[in-house]
Amino acid sequence: MLQRAFFSARAFVRAYSAVPRNTRFARVTPDLLDKFSGVLSTPKSSILSSLPGGAWTTVEQNDLATFNEDWMGKYKGKSTCVIRPKSTAELSDIMRICYDNDVAVVPQGGNTGLVGGSVPVHDEVVISLTALNRVRSFDAAAGTLVCDAGCVLEMLDEHVAEHGYMMPLDLGAKGSCQIGGNVATNAGGLRFLRYGSLHGNVLGLEVVLPNGEILHNLGTLRKDNTGASVLTTGFDLKQLFIGSEGTIGIITGVAIATPPRPSATNVAVFGISSFDAVQSTFQRTKQHLGEILSAYEFIDGETYGLVQTNPSRGVRDVFAERHPMYVLIETSGSCKAHDDEKLQGLLEDLLENAVVSDGVLAQDESQVQTLWALRESAPEAYARQGKVYKYDISMPIERMYELVEHMRSHYDEIGLLDKPDRPGPVKYVGGYGHVGDGNLHINIVAENYDPVIENATVPHIYEWIRDTQ
Amino acid sequence: MLQRAFFSARAFVRAYSAVPRNTRFARVTPDLLDKFSGVLSTPKSSILSSLPGGAWTTVEQNDLATFNEDWMGKYKGKSTCVIRPKSTAELSDIMRICYDNDVAVVPQGGNTGLVGGSVPVHDEVVISLTALNRVRSFDAAAGTLVCDAGCVLEMLDEHVAEHGYMMPLDLGAKGSCQIGGNVATNAGGLRFLRYGSLHGNVLGLEVVLPNGEILHNLGTLRKDNTGASVLTTGFDLKQLFIGSEGTIGIITGVAIATPPRPSATNVAVFGISSFDAVQSTFQRTKQHLGEILSAYEFIDGETYGLVQTNPSRGVRDVFAERHPMYVLIETSGSCKAHDDEKLQGLLEDLLENAVVSDGVLAQDESQVQTLWALRESAPEAYARQGKVYKYDISMPIERMYELVEHMRSHYDEIGLLDKPDRPGPVKYVGGYGHVGDGNLHINIVAENYDPVIENATVPHIYEWIRDTQ
Repeated sequence: MLQRAFFSARAFVRAYSAVPRNTRFARVTPDLLDKFSGVLSTPKSSILSSLPGGAWTTVEQNDLATFNEDWMGKYKGKSTCVIRPKSTAELSDIMRICYDNDVAVVPQGGNTGLVGGSVPVHDEVVISLTALNRVRSFDAAAGTLVCDAGCVLEMLDEHVAEHGYMMPLDLGAKGSCQIGGNVATNAGGLRFLRYGSLHGNVLGLEVVLPNGEILHNLGTLRKDNTGASVLTTGFDLKQLFIGSEGTIGIITGVAIATPPRPSATNVAVFGISSFDAVQSTFQRTKQHLGEILSAYEFIDGETYGLVQTNPSRGVRDVFAERHPMYVLIETSGSCKAHDDEKLQGLLEDLLENAVVSDGVLAQDESQVQTLWALRESAPEAYARQGKVYKYDISMPIERMYELVEHMRSHYDEIGLLDKPDRPGPVKYVGGYGHVGDGNLHINIVAENYDPVIENATVPHIYEWIRDTQ
Repeated sequence: MLQRAFFSARAFVRAYSAVPRNTRFARVTPDLLDKFSGVLSTPKSSILSSLPGGAWTTVEQNDLATFNEDWMGKYKGKSTCVIRPKSTAELSDIMRICYDNDVAVVPQGGNTGLVGGSVPVHDEVVISLTALNRVRSFDAAAGTLVCDAGCVLEMLDEHVAEHGYMMPLDLGAKGSCQIGGNVATNAGGLRFLRYGSLHGNVLGLEVVLPNGEILHNLGTLRKDNTGASVLTTGFDLKQLFIGSEGTIGIITGVAIATPPRPSATNVAVFGISSFDAVQSTFQRTKQHLGEILSAYEFIDGETYGLVQTNPSRGVRDVFAERHPMYVLIETSGSCKAHDDEKLQGLLEDLLENAVVSDGVLAQDESQVQTLWALRESAPEAYARQGKVYKYDISMPIERMYELVEHMRSHYDEIGLLDKPDRPGPVKYVGGYGHVGDGNLHINIVAENYDPVIENATVPHIYEWIRDTQ
């Protein structure tokens, strides 16, 4: 039921209850940094540390903040050392040293995660994948990409675009997030509806295990059952690293299938009266658009309102009046004329039957970007309002939005919800997400991270989800 | 590189070199059958055994042949006992008894496999999933199916068709093969090109472990990362059972995502001059058909010729003259007019540029079946000619067909290939398969399974594949 909420919960506990540091783990010392330096080709640029002296680059502890903190400022570690290996072999050597010396590590990709998985809890060494950023190969006939884990998703999408392909996943954070982190967190994102899970799209992985051993499994075959044979080494082990959050190894290389890039794209946004209507619009949309439907996202009124206060990303209000719900649909196909005709059929059906209240259709690429910005800027819009409690939840579609309504009235009942006639610490409760995948992003905004709100939220939200099957 | 060839090799060794029976395993006795009978609700119909007396059904040993042998007659076991549990709980009890008494078992679904994985080597108890054949639930809004492992694939496809969906996989053996076996062997089949791997489509599994423990993981959420949390029990463990060939547990239940059933289908078959032209036709086909392409299969001239000698399945010769290669393409879409127009564009391109020599387009559902029969009857066509050595191989597309040509000349060089001027034991060497997935089925037909041919084939074929990267 829960996607990463348990992780969230664990991180909360860490952040607020001060989980004690495990004394088994060694502290980073200049001696250790000397060992790291000895196995790196360019220790000066590969190691940042607040410890003085040596072959590495010494910085102020404050300068390590971008590695110690997540972008929402919710989770803060105290690492004194960041390592950016330039090759899998270097990373392997670093891990072996850490393993032999009982040094705790945290792997970090683009550090765009929302659940504290990519920052240290205490003083773990940060292993940043940023310098492992080369495309290794692309087979333009088969559409198979092999690349380093530190490649930024958007860069990869642009790379394969030159050959007429696209990455099978897309996220709002695409400009910063790295493919290794996408795989390690089993990211779904905006194209899941059409292109499916990374469990299906990832063809191979290269992984450095905790002891430094390198697992080589970077095949690009579309079908590969060799691991299933008892005569070879085992089962489809790479699957275990997809979604493992870096707990059992660090992904250093990814082989992934990329689908052909569509030559025609349409985006439309509808204003809708209720979440029930969001669902009935989804059924009609699937009927009319069939195989060209590539996204069906919803934003609630709360989210839409906050997005409008966020001037970034070229957001603007595209409707004359506000609606309780909004839906963004995207089509991707190989024939513009056919896609337009299918979309026209849908629009006529929706308007004739008054299923939607209003609609806007992008007329050019710039308008496509403007409409997508409404959805993609939602996380930032919440973050700008204060401190955000976020949960990323898989639900049966028909009950997805109930949770938002339930949490809002829950905070209201116990007097935490901010209202004109009664101020409270919970400023906003809203939701958006991927209707096609049954994936809700619920956001609860407070002025500060506050144990009172936290105690009113956890385990209440988990129990509600557990009981809503 | 190899899909199941290693399994094949192992089975060959067993079949011909008489792998000794492991004396650690107990023999089936009437006492043991009494124990089995004690945990089954209907032992009379659930247990078939050639052992006399008791609560079970006693049959002649010959009557167990369909359970002891694969359909090609290549692998033959000597089991004296077949059990068909009626529930997961019964199967769990049976496995616990086998575990406690050191009794070897072999799980068996539709027994349509080609590599000997579903029949006993010696006297293992056959655990047949045939009686576990109920659909448990279907969510018509989300398209998620939950069913017993023994459900026949075609029956499931018909079941979900009533709600406008289809199974994400299709095989020639669909009328007999069971979904549990499909998952256990990670079957690819005819829809892989469009709908991808079972690693992406399987949402959950219920599995009975060797000691009888039941692993419950039948969730139907499209995204489910709960297993990734270190606070829950583990990682995405169900992935390990996909393609595990029954070696680490018996799949008893499957939750699977089903895509919307297309309302329009077209099938065309082309005569083509070479495998190079098969590839260039594939590139043009992808450009013209884009998202509606649902199959791109090839059959070589050898296969086509043999298929024509097989009167089953309504096969007939649809071309005035024979060609070196044939390609079958299928489109699946939501708008017949659009699909026809895209296909017309492809046909004009192919004929104008003389990429294909001839082509046939199905005009109605009956012709669709006739054209598909050319491809689907290929395995039977080979089997009717004698004893077949079969390999199911993943290859880079551009080198797929080289293996067939190589093996043919290899047998010729060493004097094994049957020729008008020099008779030999190898009658036919041909290939067909899934071009889009890089998946070749190579078939080598002999009068009998013969150690001379076997020694000329293995390890030669494996080494060639290994060296062809």
